[in-house]
Amino acid sequence: MGKEWFAVPRRLVGVMSGTSLDGVDVVVADFWRQEKRDHFRLWGWYHEEFPPLLRFRLRRLQEESLTIAEVAELHWELSEWTAESVRRCCQTLGIGLESVDAVGVHGQTVYHNPGARGERGYGIGLQLTNLSALAQWLEKTVVGDFRSADLAHGGEGAPLVPVFDWAFLRSDREGVVVLNIGGIANVTVLPPDCTPEQVRAWDTGPGNLWIDTAVELFFGKRYDEGGRIAQAGRLVPRLWEALQQLSFIRQPPPKSTGRELFSRRHLQELLQQSLPPGIPAEDVVHTLARFTAWSIAENLRLFAASCARLIVSGGGALNQFLMEQLQQELPAVRIERSEVYGIPVQAKEALCFAYLAYRTLGGVPGNLPSVTGARRAAVLGVIAQPGKGEAGL
Amino acid sequence: MGKEWFAVPRRLVGVMSGTSLDGVDVVVADFWRQEKRDHFRLWGWYHEEFPPLLRFRLRRLQEESLTIAEVAELHWELSEWTAESVRRCCQTLGIGLESVDAVGVHGQTVYHNPGARGERGYGIGLQLTNLSALAQWLEKTVVGDFRSADLAHGGEGAPLVPVFDWAFLRSDREGVVVLNIGGIANVTVLPPDCTPEQVRAWDTGPGNLWIDTAVELFFGKRYDEGGRIAQAGRLVPRLWEALQQLSFIRQPPPKSTGRELFSRRHLQELLQQSLPPGIPAEDVVHTLARFTAWSIAENLRLFAASCARLIVSGGGALNQFLMEQLQQELPAVRIERSEVYGIPVQAKEALCFAYLAYRTLGGVPGNLPSVTGARRAAVLGVIAQPGKGEAGL
Repeated sequence: MGKEWFAVPRRLVGVMSGTSLDGVDVVVADFWRQEKRDHFRLWGWYHEEFPPLLRFRLRRLQEESLTIAEVAELHWELSEWTAESVRRCCQTLGIGLESVDAVGVHGQTVYHNPGARGERGYGIGLQLTNLSALAQWLEKTVVGDFRSADLAHGGEGAPLVPVFDWAFLRSDREGVVVLNIGGIANVTVLPPDCTPEQVRAWDTGPGNLWIDTAVELFFGKRYDEGGRIAQAGRLVPRLWEALQQLSFIRQPPPKSTGRELFSRRHLQELLQQSLPPGIPAEDVVHTLARFTAWSIAENLRLFAASCARLIVSGGGALNQFLMEQLQQELPAVRIERSEVYGIPVQAKEALCFAYLAYRTLGGVPGNLPSVTGARRAAVLGVIAQPGKGEAGL
Repeated sequence: MGKEWFAVPRRLVGVMSGTSLDGVDVVVADFWRQEKRDHFRLWGWYHEEFPPLLRFRLRRLQEESLTIAEVAELHWELSEWTAESVRRCCQTLGIGLESVDAVGVHGQTVYHNPGARGERGYGIGLQLTNLSALAQWLEKTVVGDFRSADLAHGGEGAPLVPVFDWAFLRSDREGVVVLNIGGIANVTVLPPDCTPEQVRAWDTGPGNLWIDTAVELFFGKRYDEGGRIAQAGRLVPRLWEALQQLSFIRQPPPKSTGRELFSRRHLQELLQQSLPPGIPAEDVVHTLARFTAWSIAENLRLFAASCARLIVSGGGALNQFLMEQLQQELPAVRIERSEVYGIPVQAKEALCFAYLAYRTLGGVPGNLPSVTGARRAAVLGVIAQPGKGEAGL
């Protein structure tokens, strides 16, 4: 595509589905380059839950052995469902799909193991969703598999949001930390007037993952709406201490994690070992929410030099209890939700992958080596073209 | 890339690894468009066997359930090994990798089920080999996942070689059939002076797959060199009859198959049921080789209107016994090996995937709907770019 890609504004769809398996977020946004900065205008966003059976099968993939036929089925079924979600998003927002230039798709991470690089010099990961099929069905250019190029150069393959944070949320005057609380929580640290090389970012630990797991186990709900369950509970000291022992939290960045380290099984083991009998279930949720807030704050205290402003996005930003705990942990910091900057809290990652696709199609790198630990910056992902035409010459 | 791609000759590497799991074939060739025809010049080819452990694990994937971690490992290990093979190929041929414009990679098919379209309107398949990582490691544009776009449009996703056969092997004056005997055998039927829409092609049944399996089971060898084992045997009538019952052979085209239908297990069951006691093992190999020749000839007799010339490639072209049987089955046909046209018999498929990458980078379709049954022609595959540069604007 090359540099002419940047000559006019481009309309991108971004599709994100995270480790919490709650479905996809889809955005439509325009991006353009002007006066040496990138700009965006978000037209809207759309959330769609996974069909229950698809979610069940994706979860099974993490926990059991499957035949390669089952893996292939999921790879294609995710594509078909993603194509439908993109169509329904455009319909809902009243935006014609024909006005869209390209679609950036995160894909469903089913494996992420940057630690494998210890043995061979690069970490490995796997996203499902067939990009070629998606391009054909949508008749759009599709960009995806954003993490592999960074992993190939010895990076963690994550986080990839920081280039977006740097492009759109840095401040000339004060230190900004951008926090996303999805299944996993991650931060981007932007010193005042920073260059891309000065950006640092990492996963701090669990975001909503363990809170959601506990709420599902004990209350049969998918998440703790507004943090009301946590609000009603009290701290379980033994569990609190066990959680604080988890070495990932204080491990120095760069670091990233997936569902593996903060799995349902791991939480169940911890609860087995650390719950006195007769504890109300609200106390478990309360303790996990406080641990989540503490683990984020502890990462900032240990590893972020300056943080005057904390910009929060992700589903966790809607958890009132979690946000209050975060403010208590970080009393000197101004905490804002990303909506203040025109970024709906639940749509930020989808918007970021739309932006990463915009960069890839312009032939510019999307990873920040200072953040991922990669040996170099790289143009991320693969491009599937929808072109038709004659089969001959 | 668009039309300027065709303005100058392009140098491509093609990488093919088939269902027989014998390793990869790598070619380096130049392609150019002139006077409304495509032309190629092959610089050389290179074969490398899979490391035994990699082959063992790929075979296991077809037969057992695996964790998603094992699938991800293979996906990356294949890429690393493919990158090394491409480097060693260029070294061996004395061609600088820096002179190469792009690399076309078939990838390792681990699942192929076009029949799934009965339920949902499209068949599914899965190739492993991480294309983004490969592009980064080789610092080259990489094109791969060629089958998905055709499957997405309801096609069989195979065979994809026919556009190559049409471009380079058609005749103005007589009917030509191009036969490749790899793990699976397939034919391309080119009527005199045909258009792409008149081309037909399909898998005829097993190529070397069952011969190789029997030779491995009974002789501990990987293949029947020159067909000498088959030559020493005699027909086993009961097995011969059982083989002729296999409905795939006489099923009308379009049709394609993978390792699933002609699996080791299926052969073992057939042998169990159809071998009288005390039969020499050479007789089994003899019967399987004759069945392979018969199944190819039967397909031509039933479904190919005119065939004056048969151009044979693939490892099976080196099996003297098989070639003789083929000539006996088709006495009126002139049988030639593809070398006559500058195409080494073992490198043809690799050359074809180099050509398919050449087409994709020029934005022109590579599948023939008349052949695959797809609802339309499509630009095949996904493109991974190696670009470097700054992480900023």
